[in-house]
Amino acid sequence: MPFLTHSPSSQTLWRSSGVRVLRTTSGGPGVTRWFGEHQSPPTSQHARPCAFLSEVFQDVTIVAALGFGFLNLSLRRYGWSSVAFNLFLLALGVQWAVLMDGFLDQHFQNKVVIKLSRIKLATMSAMSVLISVGAVLGKTNLLQLTLMALVEVTVFVTMMMIDRHYLNVDAHVSMMHIHVFATYFGLMVAWFLSRSLNETVVQEKTQTEKRSSLFTMLGTLFLWIFWPSFNSALLDSPTERKNAVFSTYYALAASTVTAISVSVLAHSQRKINMTHIHNAVLAGGVAVGTSCHLITSPWLAMVLGFMAGLISIGGALCLPGYFNQVLGTHDTCGVHYTFGLPGLLGGITYILLIIYEVNWTTKSISRIDIQLFFGAGTLSLAMASGLITGVLTGLILSLKIFKAPPAAKHFDDQAFWEFPHLATGF
Amino acid sequence: MPFLTHSPSSQTLWRSSGVRVLRTTSGGPGVTRWFGEHQSPPTSQHARPCAFLSEVFQDVTIVAALGFGFLNLSLRRYGWSSVAFNLFLLALGVQWAVLMDGFLDQHFQNKVVIKLSRIKLATMSAMSVLISVGAVLGKTNLLQLTLMALVEVTVFVTMMMIDRHYLNVDAHVSMMHIHVFATYFGLMVAWFLSRSLNETVVQEKTQTEKRSSLFTMLGTLFLWIFWPSFNSALLDSPTERKNAVFSTYYALAASTVTAISVSVLAHSQRKINMTHIHNAVLAGGVAVGTSCHLITSPWLAMVLGFMAGLISIGGALCLPGYFNQVLGTHDTCGVHYTFGLPGLLGGITYILLIIYEVNWTTKSISRIDIQLFFGAGTLSLAMASGLITGVLTGLILSLKIFKAPPAAKHFDDQAFWEFPHLATGF
Amino acid sequence: MPFLTHSPSSQTLWRSSGVRVLRTTSGGPGVTRWFGEHQSPPTSQHARPCAFLSEVFQDVTIVAALGFGFLNLSLRRYGWSSVAFNLFLLALGVQWAVLMDGFLDQHFQNKVVIKLSRIKLATMSAMSVLISVGAVLGKTNLLQLTLMALVEVTVFVTMMMIDRHYLNVDAHVSMMHIHVFATYFGLMVAWFLSRSLNETVVQEKTQTEKRSSLFTMLGTLFLWIFWPSFNSALLDSPTERKNAVFSTYYALAASTVTAISVSVLAHSQRKINMTHIHNAVLAGGVAVGTSCHLITSPWLAMVLGFMAGLISIGGALCLPGYFNQVLGTHDTCGVHYTFGLPGLLGGITYILLIIYEVNWTTKSISRIDIQLFFGAGTLSLAMASGLITGVLTGLILSLKIFKAPPAAKHFDDQAFWEFPHLATGF
Repeated sequence: MPFLTHSPSSQTLWRSSGVRVLRTTSGGPGVTRWFGEHQSPPTSQHARPCAFLSEVFQDVTIVAALGFGFLNLSLRRYGWSSVAFNLFLLALGVQWAVLMDGFLDQHFQNKVVIKLSRIKLATMSAMSVLISVGAVLGKTNLLQLTLMALVEVTVFVTMMMIDRHYLNVDAHVSMMHIHVFATYFGLMVAWFLSRSLNETVVQEKTQTEKRSSLFTMLGTLFLWIFWPSFNSALLDSPTERKNAVFSTYYALAASTVTAISVSVLAHSQRKINMTHIHNAVLAGGVAVGTSCHLITSPWLAMVLGFMAGLISIGGALCLPGYFNQVLGTHDTCGVHYTFGLPGLLGGITYILLIIYEVNWTTKSISRIDIQLFFGAGTLSLAMASGLITGVLTGLILSLKIFKAPPAAKHFDDQAFWEFPHLATGF
Repeated sequence: MPFLTHSPSSQTLWRSSGVRVLRTTSGGPGVTRWFGEHQSPPTSQHARPCAFLSEVFQDVTIVAALGFGFLNLSLRRYGWSSVAFNLFLLALGVQWAVLMDGFLDQHFQNKVVIKLSRIKLATMSAMSVLISVGAVLGKTNLLQLTLMALVEVTVFVTMMMIDRHYLNVDAHVSMMHIHVFATYFGLMVAWFLSRSLNETVVQEKTQTEKRSSLFTMLGTLFLWIFWPSFNSALLDSPTERKNAVFSTYYALAASTVTAISVSVLAHSQRKINMTHIHNAVLAGGVAVGTSCHLITSPWLAMVLGFMAGLISIGGALCLPGYFNQVLGTHDTCGVHYTFGLPGLLGGITYILLIIYEVNWTTKSISRIDIQLFFGAGTLSLAMASGLITGVLTGLILSLKIFKAPPAAKHFDDQAFWEFPHLATGF
Repeated sequence: MPFLTHSPSSQTLWRSSGVRVLRTTSGGPGVTRWFGEHQSPPTSQHARPCAFLSEVFQDVTIVAALGFGFLNLSLRRYGWSSVAFNLFLLALGVQWAVLMDGFLDQHFQNKVVIKLSRIKLATMSAMSVLISVGAVLGKTNLLQLTLMALVEVTVFVTMMMIDRHYLNVDAHVSMMHIHVFATYFGLMVAWFLSRSLNETVVQEKTQTEKRSSLFTMLGTLFLWIFWPSFNSALLDSPTERKNAVFSTYYALAASTVTAISVSVLAHSQRKINMTHIHNAVLAGGVAVGTSCHLITSPWLAMVLGFMAGLISIGGALCLPGYFNQVLGTHDTCGVHYTFGLPGLLGGITYILLIIYEVNWTTKSISRIDIQLFFGAGTLSLAMASGLITGVLTGLILSLKIFKAPPAAKHFDDQAFWEFPHLATGF
């Protein structure tokens, strides 16, 4: 591909950042530190001004509060709860994540300082709850959600700590497994809570509605616009950040075109399904997340976006029926094919890229093994901890003491909100 | 509090910025200039790039146009007017504030230059109108609102000028009294305009509606996300800005959790009141405003946020009945407990912080008196000028020549907008 | 105007940037390079950090995806299509523009690199489709829109290339003619597609609706807030960028006040027309676009904003009837008086400013002629290429093979979207 490549410096960066995973810390298994000559992390970190940090922090908050807040609004009768509970869980999760991060970090360092970057990390960790909540929305009350948020944030922050201190994986890669972790956590919780579902209530109350769907579109658009910011938020080097913004944007553009085209082609009367659009346009950004800073070719990003769009639409067409009827897991907002499957695709792509990269640069078979071990280890850890702690949380939340809303009141704002006139048509 | 403190440099800043209020200007009463060694304002101001300014300016515009535009949308039949009049008053107010600022400043300096920072200041001054308008919305026509905007911006810009030149209060603190000033101005105007209110019209037309409420939530979220930017917009030193962003974010998170929890607990059937949420989640940001740059401990910010949430919900539960029936003041969008009471809490906290701070650093009783005098003076000036000019404006606006809309057309878009079909269900 | 001028350095900039158009490139007609002493482009370009670029890029994406996405939502039954097709066309257009830009640029340079600034340019080029689509919305299917997007982006990128390489016009001025180009392209296409329109369907389905109109207002507000960013996105020098942000903001404020006041005064019962507001508040930003970096006096910007507001409201009152009935061109969302007429005003203002400027600085009649030739040439090229390629595209799109939706299904989401229950009231 002679035409369409990034600016010259990227090629060297690929090499140097591909092996950043090998970075040794005190608790690591003793691999030597290796930095490319063209990259000097201390300087690049120093050059990052406060204004930039504060801006990225704001973008992350927009993703969390506006993006996720409105993304789950498609339920006809559950709009108020979707957006307000999202804000509640975000505010709670951030505070809890800062505390947890402090406690756990104190274990490794003696002094704990609060910096803007920690609040950014806490906001991103709290997002795991906002993703998971899409699977259980409408089947839980506020108390259950609060407990779920506390457990999930604790597990996620612990997982990131393990990744950093024992698996030598940097914060960006570790954070990007949030999609896989949160999806399977949410699906497991939903599995326990879906048992009492009343099929007719689900049928009637989970319909898409025209006006609510526009709010969902608003959430989708916010996520679409600020996803490059989210994907590049934890990267230090300007070149890596630039690569991340590029690749995410390309992948999103490709998955948007794919999603709409495939949705048209998949329907017998050539009509588009709005739910596909809400979910599949974001799949590209999710899939490219883990490896976005390593991708220097737009083609690779676009191919990833295209595949993510296909997988997402495919999942939306095939999986709900199977999951609902065979496994009895009701995934309210389709987090499985919006975040879970594209996240898996992204994780696998990252492992492949690392192998290809290390292979090409060092030709040493032992290093590939280490990379493979760490890459696959992190992904498996994210998935396994999501599944296991999800099952445990689901078990606890399905206890009678939580007074979960009865099946007839599922997906209904009236269970939680004071309305002036219950009679007037909502 | 050994764990959870800000980065080292903040502690020294507290000391140096606590007494920034003592800064002397040509017109001041002769207190000597005192700068901490660790802070060099000329450099920090110089280091602030154009890009940063332009970004903060944009954030402030988002707060004004999107945040306030959609915050008052909860009236069922008044959506168009709320958002369009807000934009009109913003555009008018900004232009008028730039003019006023120019005229008044010309009095002190000979040459007037327009800089981006002045437009930012003008936008923030124009926000006083956007706050006040929440109390009178639905009871006024466009002509009355125009006059109110011109008077209020003039008074507010004059007040800031007095604060700066005679009370030695810096622009940030002065600006943060906007909540107290604008609330009492708005309430006084509303007092005069509420006399003709028809109780059944109010009952019927001010109901919350499901769909409109989601737009209000959108406004609330914009304010929630960009409030840290608003609170730090007028601070020069990067450390103060960082403190301000931190404290505001913590306070907002705390008041969000408080607001939703207390709203649940206060209701007999454990249901949440949406109006509480719209108002109380912002109370933390308002309360922390005046002192946000001085707060280095997250705990203090969170306690402030918690108290602000409590006060706001308490006000929303108790005050409307009293104000409506005893005083006859109808506060359409609850500005009293969204901005007024938390603003008062913030003003008092600032005075306490200053006293504690000066006491601790200098041990000189005379300096405390001066601080107390200036701190309390600014707050009282804001409240008094709000009350007095509000009464005067209310008197003028209740004159017959303005042709205020009749009581039956209050809170109704049909009085102002051309609809294609008046019959179809709005 | 002794009071209210910009900071001192602007005056000199005016002089230096007024003749930047004379910049010679390899393909140009041999005018000598002339740079003011006060401006050093290489340094200013170098000083622009990555963070700034990435921020401006984000603002441009917000304008394209959120602003234009929601701007055209006022059609009662066409909400889903408006916003989703907008996102589709944006994603498609950006990818196509990057490709086209690469191909065309390869013709002039040997090596093609992809930089963030190119993606920004591609996003802005893709906006031409988003503007044009406002005129044909509801009368086309997705296949027609796809073809239109590909043709329009190709023509626009080619036009910018011709401007740059043969007419020596810099990217900013060239880009700002997007409004004129896109409007007349869209109108020509709409001319061919409006022939089959059913008048009663149009009457019934293009009505404004209360709730949709609030979404339109959301789009308008996004455009309003981020228009200064859009207008300054392609400027290199910080001073020019500052001037652009200033003038655009002033012009927008002036046109907002004008639009609302004139809309009230023009109606016999003193009622405001919401459609006027959606369109006319933006007219100021469009009109000031081409010359915003040259305007240093707020008065000039405000006068331009006032005139643009007048023209836009005037156009909205007079033109639709004439165009609909005499020419048979149905302009769905009023792009003619939102973007077209204010864009023409802006183009003419730019020519006048250049003449005045060159005249004043050089007193050489021959240089004026060159300026006039290039200034008028660019504007005419934009208009002519819009008209001609619009006619060709309209001819192709009106072919039977595209299976355009029948007149009865115009302006209706049901032609394109899968709804859960077709019966329930939309």
